[in-house]
Amino acid sequence: MRLRNGSHAAAAPDDRAPVAIICGGGTLPFAVADAAAMQGRRVVLLAIRGWADPARVAGYRHHWVALGQFGRLRRLAQAENCRDVVFIGAVIRPAIRGIRLDWATILLLPRIIRLYRGGDDQLLSGIGRIFEEHGMRLRGAHEVAPNILVPAGPIGRLRPSRRDEADIARGLGVLSALGPFDIGQAVVVADNHVLAVEAAEGTDNLLARVAELRKVGRIRSPGGVGVLVKAPKPGQDRRLDLPAVGPQTISGVIRAGLAGVAVVAGGAIMAEPEEVAAAADSGKVFVVGVGADPSQP
Amino acid sequence: MRLRNGSHAAAAPDDRAPVAIICGGGTLPFAVADAAAMQGRRVVLLAIRGWADPARVAGYRHHWVALGQFGRLRRLAQAENCRDVVFIGAVIRPAIRGIRLDWATILLLPRIIRLYRGGDDQLLSGIGRIFEEHGMRLRGAHEVAPNILVPAGPIGRLRPSRRDEADIARGLGVLSALGPFDIGQAVVVADNHVLAVEAAEGTDNLLARVAELRKVGRIRSPGGVGVLVKAPKPGQDRRLDLPAVGPQTISGVIRAGLAGVAVVAGGAIMAEPEEVAAAADSGKVFVVGVGADPSQP
Repeated sequence: MRLRNGSHAAAAPDDRAPVAIICGGGTLPFAVADAAAMQGRRVVLLAIRGWADPARVAGYRHHWVALGQFGRLRRLAQAENCRDVVFIGAVIRPAIRGIRLDWATILLLPRIIRLYRGGDDQLLSGIGRIFEEHGMRLRGAHEVAPNILVPAGPIGRLRPSRRDEADIARGLGVLSALGPFDIGQAVVVADNHVLAVEAAEGTDNLLARVAELRKVGRIRSPGGVGVLVKAPKPGQDRRLDLPAVGPQTISGVIRAGLAGVAVVAGGAIMAEPEEVAAAADSGKVFVVGVGADPSQP
Repeated sequence: MRLRNGSHAAAAPDDRAPVAIICGGGTLPFAVADAAAMQGRRVVLLAIRGWADPARVAGYRHHWVALGQFGRLRRLAQAENCRDVVFIGAVIRPAIRGIRLDWATILLLPRIIRLYRGGDDQLLSGIGRIFEEHGMRLRGAHEVAPNILVPAGPIGRLRPSRRDEADIARGLGVLSALGPFDIGQAVVVADNHVLAVEAAEGTDNLLARVAELRKVGRIRSPGGVGVLVKAPKPGQDRRLDLPAVGPQTISGVIRAGLAGVAVVAGGAIMAEPEEVAAAADSGKVFVVGVGADPSQP
């Protein structure tokens, strides 16, 4: 069910502040918008041109912005009386050429370039600070829509076996060891053997690599063994970059011949739990929300 | 210059034991054979069918063995009076179907399967023990041919910049953190940002991935920035699985648009240093042997 935010604007209590959702690609922004609207918030989409889906955007109160128009974005948020701002959805690093900078952005450029040279964490928390200094409050998608986070326990019918649980524990251990290096939101472990570690390539590419390694015979464990383990980076600014798990993740897990996926509960967004459960059940893989402590998978 | 071992057999002093080189794919086995022969050892190749290069093998005293013929391999080593055995060269895990097992191997199968389920380290040190129990002494390629290891300092004309040195330190830090998990012989770091971590895919695939990420615009740093950092895993059994750096590695580094490659000195094999230096110079990348301590790159 899709809710127009218009029908909720009147019903919103005063302590439920209106929220501007800066809206990248994919379906996630709309799930967040719907969930925030259901919490009784007035929602305005600031849709990023070239990334946000125009057909879906049209169903919400919205304005279009181009990448690099920080000044316009701030003015729109102010005009809409939105102090709370959420940034959600895919925005693959655009070619510099494609960006149209406005003056506010140009003034911020030296700082943004400095942030860009660091890891993701540094970039994201730096962006958070810039928003705050300009009178906005950067909120995480999970703060305006808490029910989109991965819950604890199994999602779908299957559960991890003992062998899977050992793989999950090892995966959490690897991710925890990589935490200080500002990488490692996902890892694939099969039969206690670490097959693949995610860095800049993203989870979909990680899973495609495992599928390829399996095809060429470089994976020792048989099909149906192995787990994708996902966790937020320790110290990660969750307002900007919570990992997400969706039906596409499940398809990747199935193609990689794994037994399932374990996600730190509360540490990732799952906008479409029913679709995820259905995909997992039909592909005979498990999906489970687990504790972050490697010793207690 | 290629030396036939025959010319050295007579010259070998008694304290230079003859050595059997179990010979997989690539050029590495022949570099080791030549270097061992230059040390005054009598060398016999036990060439693995389907992997060792027949044209090159023909230039040495040799016997062919198939994968899975541990009994035949032991008999050949004994008949050739080789107690020292070196295993070198690529042997990508073969399809089970392609293996012809002899009886000695069949008796060892349950143990090999147990080893296979662990990580690489466990597999390799377990294989080492099996050789020892059957009267052979498994030696590392670097033990019979110490001059094939990466030396400290620059190889070729270029040297790492300050920025590169920071990337090298970070890469060594990541590899050190991953050591306990029996993975991580290589990592790519650019501008302090970890772009890719090697697990089961191998260094060539790692570099191809970085090249692809650059092509699709998912790498922030400009071309010519970033370092491939290679190190042996802590606790790795160096007799069986020292990382290797060759001209192919350099081509991968160039295609990935990196500034160069740093290898822990003494921690990797470099069978063809002249070819490596020439490839590095013509591609304008550096190659350097560094200390293993991340705080002292």
